[in-house]
Amino acid sequence: MKKHNFSAGPCILPKEVLEQASKAVINFNNIDLSLIEISHRSADFVAVMEKAQNLVLELMDLKDKGYSALFLQGGASLEFLMVPYNLMKENGKTAYLDTGAWSSKAIKEAKLFGETEVIASSKDKNYNYIPKNYTIPNDIDYLHITSNNTIYGTQIKDFPKTDALLVCDMSSDIFSRKLDFTQFDLIYAGAQKNMGPAGTTLVVIKNDILGKTGRKIPSMLDYQIHISKESMFNTPPVFPVYVSMLTLQWLKDLGGIDAIEKINNDKAALLYDEIDRNPLFAGAATKEDRSNMNVTFLLTDESKKEKFDQMCKDAGINGVKGHRSVGGYRASIYNAMPKESIQVLVDLMRNL
Amino acid sequence: MKKHNFSAGPCILPKEVLEQASKAVINFNNIDLSLIEISHRSADFVAVMEKAQNLVLELMDLKDKGYSALFLQGGASLEFLMVPYNLMKENGKTAYLDTGAWSSKAIKEAKLFGETEVIASSKDKNYNYIPKNYTIPNDIDYLHITSNNTIYGTQIKDFPKTDALLVCDMSSDIFSRKLDFTQFDLIYAGAQKNMGPAGTTLVVIKNDILGKTGRKIPSMLDYQIHISKESMFNTPPVFPVYVSMLTLQWLKDLGGIDAIEKINNDKAALLYDEIDRNPLFAGAATKEDRSNMNVTFLLTDESKKEKFDQMCKDAGINGVKGHRSVGGYRASIYNAMPKESIQVLVDLMRNL
Repeated sequence: MKKHNFSAGPCILPKEVLEQASKAVINFNNIDLSLIEISHRSADFVAVMEKAQNLVLELMDLKDKGYSALFLQGGASLEFLMVPYNLMKENGKTAYLDTGAWSSKAIKEAKLFGETEVIASSKDKNYNYIPKNYTIPNDIDYLHITSNNTIYGTQIKDFPKTDALLVCDMSSDIFSRKLDFTQFDLIYAGAQKNMGPAGTTLVVIKNDILGKTGRKIPSMLDYQIHISKESMFNTPPVFPVYVSMLTLQWLKDLGGIDAIEKINNDKAALLYDEIDRNPLFAGAATKEDRSNMNVTFLLTDESKKEKFDQMCKDAGINGVKGHRSVGGYRASIYNAMPKESIQVLVDLMRNL
Repeated sequence: MKKHNFSAGPCILPKEVLEQASKAVINFNNIDLSLIEISHRSADFVAVMEKAQNLVLELMDLKDKGYSALFLQGGASLEFLMVPYNLMKENGKTAYLDTGAWSSKAIKEAKLFGETEVIASSKDKNYNYIPKNYTIPNDIDYLHITSNNTIYGTQIKDFPKTDALLVCDMSSDIFSRKLDFTQFDLIYAGAQKNMGPAGTTLVVIKNDILGKTGRKIPSMLDYQIHISKESMFNTPPVFPVYVSMLTLQWLKDLGGIDAIEKINNDKAALLYDEIDRNPLFAGAATKEDRSNMNVTFLLTDESKKEKFDQMCKDAGINGVKGHRSVGGYRASIYNAMPKESIQVLVDLMRNL
């Protein structure tokens, strides 16, 4: 049965990427060995890591602009502490924008390292909007923001300007839309949305911001060490890095971020238009802050729930249940989601 | 061409495990979705994680003995700092046994946290033996040892006794030999030797040793948090955990650690006997401390090097080059290495 995979992450990946990854588990690069049983120092794997790093910088238009791309482990959750460890000065101060559960987790970890000011929060309305018109203090080491909020379906459209470092958790919308990436000093993203399987974290970092905090940083948490070892300080997560490389190549072949942004906007419009047109549904997020990756919506008539859930199940729709803190439905429509699958969902909504 | 994969890690895995893993990348559990694109909170993946944890405790005979098994990220390198973070008291003291490059790295990280005494070291002879007859201080929080030293081909046969906690890095010989695992309070191991692909770290930990240091531990580095979330505090590395589960099941089906120990001893004897018999070769490690996982040996006549290397290449032997700090050759003969491949190598040595 053809499945339509709307999971929030780990999530859908391009079919051709999955096929190539499956083959590499048996025979990688026709060397008669599996990708997962060769040395990470072998020429075959070193080439994978280099290509993945190059594709990241190329797709983001950050080549030769003083940035490094690292494929680390531990997900965004480990970045929540690596960021203050590397960027918050001893007795320094940072500012965070609180736009959801993941921002809140990042804030919790930063507070272990020093003064952490939450400069604005949308918690008052269960995070259904992005705060605006907040004041950014002048005396901070960095400002931390979360570009897309998977649970609530909100997304930052205009990024804040600050003389401090700007750090962005892009876990759930990286490579989905055209941005001037030079406005960020550090970007991180777990792979498991738009890039690859769970198990690797992309960190894109401006080299010259490091080494200025006065902290003693354990080696595995030190971005400078990872940069100096070209992301191979220790054994990297070989399979997730390889699949990420394949997905990045797939994106480049498609026309890069310019091309995918048009596709994503088109896909999101198809679904949001139906939500706005159909009186049985209502969007969960404020219109101007709607995410083009995670579309959250509610039934206006709860008595239709059982019927709609059954229709989804019968149509092979997977992972469309909303997060418990929002309820309703969440359609995650990441880069690899085909428009056809969204059309299947929209047709069900029309026929409810 | 049939390859004989002697890589030190990432390394050989059972053929049937690779085949099942390859299939799961396309269609996992016949659910018409890939293993790597489903939610880690789905029933299908939660069952994988639970099974992997149960297999670990069962194979180690640690069930119902107050231990937890965690599948984390970051390799042994992250454990080097998590261990002192979780077990070294504020203003406490620890002791480390220095048996090689990996011990040294662990020591370096521990020193960032407090007083770290190296109670014995075999560095004087390029780590070709395991120190004995050292004194363990009474006032330490834990003693840290490395059970097997991949680079030098040495292995601890008799484990030290101490009233302090005993922490063991078993990255390169876990599940290879029968041990009383209750003698350890914390065991950790990167997956990429005897368990699975790079990208997950097994931590087996006695629950009641935690929460006693007085340190504020960042969430991702806190074993207690990972235990309370059943190893799903954040998105786990789904593919490496799945392949590890398959390998552990393969080991159980084979007869568990009892059975593999016999096979491993038999395989190691085949190679060591040839090294000792053949005047063209010499073992690199002291006999009584020889590893049954990594067999290091040198040519006694360097003029034969080119010929032997070519013979290995022609025979499809991969990854047998020694580490640069020891030179010569290293045959890593982990659990999944078939005796037939070792026989191929031994035959070449005989015919040199």
